Formats: sequence, C-alpha cells, structure tokens
Amino acid sequence: MMDQDFQIKGFRFSATAAGIKKEGATRLDMALIVPETPANVAGMTTTNLVYAAPIQIMRENLATGKCSGILINSGNANACLGNDGLLRHRELIDALANEADMDREKIIPMSTGVIGNPLPVERMIQRLPELVKGLGHDKAMDVARAMMTTDTRPKIVSRKANIHDEQVSVLGMAKGSGMIAPNMATMLALLLVDAKLDNSTLAQFLQEAVSTSFNRITIDGDMSTNDAIAILSASRSDAVTIEPKSKEAGELKTALIDVCQELAHMMVEDGEGATKVARIVVNNCHAQADAIRIARMIAESPLVKTAFNGSDPNWGRIMAAAGRAGVAFDPDKADLYIGEVLVYTNGGPASDDWEEKASRVMREHEFTITLDLGSGGEHASLLTSDFSKEYVMINADYRT
Amino acid sequence: MMDQDFQIKGFRFSATAAGIKKEGATRLDMALIVPETPANVAGMTTTNLVYAAPIQIMRENLATGKCSGILINSGNANACLGNDGLLRHRELIDALANEADMDREKIIPMSTGVIGNPLPVERMIQRLPELVKGLGHDKAMDVARAMMTTDTRPKIVSRKANIHDEQVSVLGMAKGSGMIAPNMATMLALLLVDAKLDNSTLAQFLQEAVSTSFNRITIDGDMSTNDAIAILSASRSDAVTIEPKSKEAGELKTALIDVCQELAHMMVEDGEGATKVARIVVNNCHAQADAIRIARMIAESPLVKTAFNGSDPNWGRIMAAAGRAGVAFDPDKADLYIGEVLVYTNGGPASDDWEEKASRVMREHEFTITLDLGSGGEHASLLTSDFSKEYVMINADYRT
Repeated sequence: MMDQDFQIKGFRFSATAAGIKKEGATRLDMALIVPETPANVAGMTTTNLVYAAPIQIMRENLATGKCSGILINSGNANACLGNDGLLRHRELIDALANEADMDREKIIPMSTGVIGNPLPVERMIQRLPELVKGLGHDKAMDVARAMMTTDTRPKIVSRKANIHDEQVSVLGMAKGSGMIAPNMATMLALLLVDAKLDNSTLAQFLQEAVSTSFNRITIDGDMSTNDAIAILSASRSDAVTIEPKSKEAGELKTALIDVCQELAHMMVEDGEGATKVARIVVNNCHAQADAIRIARMIAESPLVKTAFNGSDPNWGRIMAAAGRAGVAFDPDKADLYIGEVLVYTNGGPASDDWEEKASRVMREHEFTITLDLGSGGEHASLLTSDFSKEYVMINADYRT
Repeated sequence: MMDQDFQIKGFRFSATAAGIKKEGATRLDMALIVPETPANVAGMTTTNLVYAAPIQIMRENLATGKCSGILINSGNANACLGNDGLLRHRELIDALANEADMDREKIIPMSTGVIGNPLPVERMIQRLPELVKGLGHDKAMDVARAMMTTDTRPKIVSRKANIHDEQVSVLGMAKGSGMIAPNMATMLALLLVDAKLDNSTLAQFLQEAVSTSFNRITIDGDMSTNDAIAILSASRSDAVTIEPKSKEAGELKTALIDVCQELAHMMVEDGEGATKVARIVVNNCHAQADAIRIARMIAESPLVKTAFNGSDPNWGRIMAAAGRAGVAFDPDKADLYIGEVLVYTNGGPASDDWEEKASRVMREHEFTITLDLGSGGEHASLLTSDFSKEYVMINADYRT
C-alpha cells in the first residue's frame, strides 16, 4: 500500500544541510518542495498571538491561492525577532524566487526550531542553488528528515484513494515532538494530493482533517509560534480532477483524514520523552465541546501523565482531572475504564481485582482510557503521551 | 516575632500516628485542633466536581457557623469511594463527638492523601482517646507535621497584630506539595485567630486572603478533590473583640493575608520536586483577570518550567505561552524582564549581553519574571516552581 520511496506524481523534493542551528553541522535542516507548475494551495497557521516571521509571510502568500514552492527549515524558528526577522526571511524568499524563477508571492516558508536567534540567512542563501538543482521525485523522505528538531524519526505517510478507477496518491509529512497541543502546536505538516481540487475544497478538507487529527493530540499543552500546515493539489496537466461535493471528493477526504490521523499518532508516539501513547475517550456527554474539554483536562494533567509513565492505574487522578474541567456531570453516574477494565463506578472503585488488571493494561506501549459520563450522546477522543524524566531532561537542556 | 512553639491562646492541639496509609507506620498522620468553646468558623472547599467525603461533611457542618474541633488526617483522601466513604467518615466523626463530648455537627474533617482507598476507620477510631487526651497548647507543630504527605517540611506561620494595645496572634498551618493550583489545590490550611470576629467578617477576610495567596500559586496545574481551608476565631471569654470594618479589623486582615502569603510561598518552595521559586508578574494589562490569565499560562507551561529548571533564559517559550493565553496584546509593545534584565523588547531580543546576565539570575533559588504589556493599568503576580526530573519520579511512583 505504501511506496517505499514515497513518490507522488507532479511533486519534486530536495533537502540539504545548511548548518542553520550550528555552522558546519551536517544534519539536513533545509528543504524544498516544488509542484510541476503553481498548485492550488490552502493552509492553516498558529493561533498564537506571538507568531514567527515565516508565519506572517505564509499568511500573505496563501492569499494568492497558488504555491510554486515550499521552503522549510529546522533549527531556527525565526520568531520574536521583530522587523529584522521579517526582513531576513523576505530576503531568503526573494533569493529562492530568483534562483528557481518563481513568483516570490507564491513561495510558502515554514520554520521550526529555537525562538529568538537571528536566522543565518547568508548561509541559507548560499545553499539555494544546490537545493534547487537537487530536486527529485524520490527525496520526500529527505524533506521529512530535514524538518526534524527533537523528533527522533521522520514522519511520512502515503495513501491511495480509488477515484474513477485511478489510484490517486496522498502524501503527508510532518514534524512534531515538543510543544504539541492544544491546537496543532509546533508542528509543521504538508499534504500533497495528486488530483486537481479547487482552493475552497482544499481549505474545507484541511479544516476537517486537522480538527480530527492534529487538534486532537497533546504532549505538553504548549502551542508554538510557528505551527503551520499546508495542502497542495496537483498541478500536472493529466492529473484527475475531483469535483467539489462528489462521491470522489468524499473518498479523497477520507484518505486525507487517514493520513493526518496517522501523522498525529506518530507525533504523539515520538513526543519528547514519550514512552507511551494513551487514547483518552469521553463517551455519553451532553455536548462534544464538553467531551473534548474533559478529555483535554485529563490528557494534559501532569499528575495523570506521570501516572501513565509509572503504569499506575491511579484513577483518582483521572477523575479529579475530569472534575475540574468546568463541565457539569454526575461523578456517581460515571464509569471509568482502563483498557477494558472497569476501575471506577457508582462513585467508587469498581471491584477488588481491578488494580493488577489495569496496571497490566498500562504496561503496554499503547492503551485507552474511557470515561463514560452516562448521559448524553456526544463523545470525543484525544491522543496523549506520558510525562517522563526524559521530557524534563530534553527541555531543561534543549537550548543551551 | 514568632513563638518558637507556635502557641496561640484558646486553642489546643494533638497529633498521633494511626498508620492510616500503612498499618503500623509511625509517622504522624492524624491530628486534632480544639478551641476553648465552640468557635466562630468560616471555610472554603474545592471547586472540583469530584470531591471527597470529608469535603461533603465539612460543607454541611460549616453551615452551623460553629466549630468544636477540626479532625485532620493524611495518607488517605477518602475520595471517590461513594456512599461507603461518606458512611465511614461519619462514623469517625460520631466517635470523636462521643469521645470528646462535642456536637458532631460542629466537627470539621479534613483529609489528604491517596484517592480511592477505603479509610481505615477502625484504626483511626482506636486512636481517638489518645488524641483527645493528648491535647495541649504546645503541639501546633505536631499538627502541621501530621498534615504532610509528600511535603518535605511542615508549614506553620505565626503573626501578631497590635490591636487596642494588645498583641493579637494569628496562627496558620498548611500542607501543600503536589497538585497545587489553579485554585487552592490539594492544600489543607487552617487559620486560627486569637480575637473574636463574627462569621461574615471571617468569611470575607478568608476570601480576600485566599485570593491573593493560595489562589496565586501553581505547581502542576492540577486541582484536588480535597482542598479545604478554615478560619476559626477565638472563643475564650477574655479575648479582644474586633468590630467589622473597624481600623482594627483592617490590621487583622493584613496579618491574615501576610500569614497566607507566607504559607503559599512555603508551598511553592516545597512543591514536589521543586528546586526554584519563580514569581511571574504581568504589568500594564487592561484587565486584572487578563493579567492573571497570562501569568497563569506562563506559570503552568511545562516548557517554561523545564527552562526554569535548567536556568535557561529561554524567553521565547515565555512569550509563546503569553501569546496563547487568549488575551489580546501587542507583542511588539511588550517588554520582558528576567530579574532586572530586559531580555525582550520591540518584538525581539533586547541586546547582545542579556543571555549571560539573565542566566545568572535564573541560577538563583528565587527570581522574578516580569512581562510589561505596555498599556493598561492592571497587574497580577503569581508564584510557581520549576519542573524537575524529581517531580516525575515522585508522581510516577507515588501510589504504588
């Protein structure tokens, strides 16, 4: 089902090591994605009031509805650097426009990394000729690698949808790790579709896919200055065209959601210091927004997450987190399950032998916590990781 | 200024080891405070929807306005145990009422410890005669010790206010540690005043003192099922009477606020795994509630707290946390200080030599982070701790 080399018709990729974080370093930290001709594009960016220079430019350029190239870098977020940061990033984009003969207003920048260090734009501009010359169909994995910061592995997913007897490819890549949540936080993600879609359909599909994937994960509750996701549709002349609201559009959307959910899962699994993935499910709630609020309160509680780390079925912490979500429910009518094991019911512990069973569930790499509120038909589900000593070590020492 | 033995006229104290968490254990885990005759009382309890049996009883009994005794235990929260939990705690209170010849509706219980384990009420009842017989004026410190769970030291503070040429004592004791915040979370606190005040003045002073102390600290953002604070005024016949809204009332309130702020500071300093105390100040904001919201977002960000742990002046994380608080401000007009060192201004880093200076500030045990938003006259201040490997170790292994 997956192409091992993650090729997708009509898109070329390139990556290089520009020594962005540290001069002379040899890890990939700069990448380019180029569609055959300017592609229809839609995107979403951080809702943080404090946002990076590339976010500013991305927002401006998304307004053209077309994308000639996506220029990604890791190692430097180019955030909180005032007008100088913006000028530097514009200089970089102008240089790429010249080098690759693109319209600078159709180039989308994405950056991730340290906040507050000036972008080493001279070093980056020097690598542009190599980056453009290196473009190839088989380098998507290199782009996924170049996006990584504290990620331990690249995140790339490919799916096919059957449309008019043709196999239409969807390729997704992302970087995640720290600062995930509450809303698509320091993540960069790209979705490439080998079919023609109009801008408003792209925007709508992106919204739906993000709301059920990247917006439903949490690692440490922080939200980044640099979150960005973009979706590009095919621009090659013989690509299949998908009409809005057709049955084919629905199939494509399903594939996109699938890709985003798998990338989101990879992000949680590779969260900073994460050793476990927990799915928090809240069932039978009166309103979905309330179900999400309760699930998030559980998923972001440091006490719950440290209990996950220790495989400790400490359901008291889970119920206490649910109880402070600001959502009215009756704790005496709620049931709590760890995996399939009922641990809390009728306002108290379930039975005498839940503890060993529940602890066994939590020793797995991945498990589900289900809180059934007992009345109302809405539900929500969220992925989270545990909180480990390694998380603290990574983040106490990351910058210095 | 402080009595070394923390005596306060009109109140007697007692503590014992009942082996509540583990049978046979010898640490103090059960305590009693008794005023000379039933005292005027006011109290506040957790806002968590999931609350413990002793909270239920405390709420009922606060309604009488009088308190004959406060019965405290650590090691078991008696929370999430349904009706059985409530019956057990009522049995305990009834036994104390018999033993000490008190009205059971004037006994206030407070519990802290593990959620979901049945309260070993038989063992506790066995210790009541000893507890009552042991009452003495010089055992306040033992009560403070008996309240501790993962606290590493007892928290007790005494102050005197000069009222009508008399020295009026205020004694406060508390337990804190994990699960502190957002609103007076797993904390128990007691305030004893050796002057006569009416119930509504007590309630009003308590509200004001809590809102500027215990509600302005955060350790891990969790809120407990068992938070409780009570204030008792003197019941001895020759204690001075303080009229509501008098100058003397103002002086007493100041002393109470002072006691609560010092206890709150002790709690943060002794937060689970805490190695540092940081004061987060937000100045020149349009509304105080917004200033609190921003300060809390900074104070609870795991990325900010791990940076504190590593003495890393990573102001980007601080600005990113402020930016996601949902409060409108102009990041280009904001100034951020670490101690006295300006680290961020005009939308970017302040100058070339802030880093070493700011890092030096953060290597201190205690420091202040000040975010000046540049317009509006409101401000707020919050105490927080850092996030350490030890926090994770304590909480991954606490219960099992």
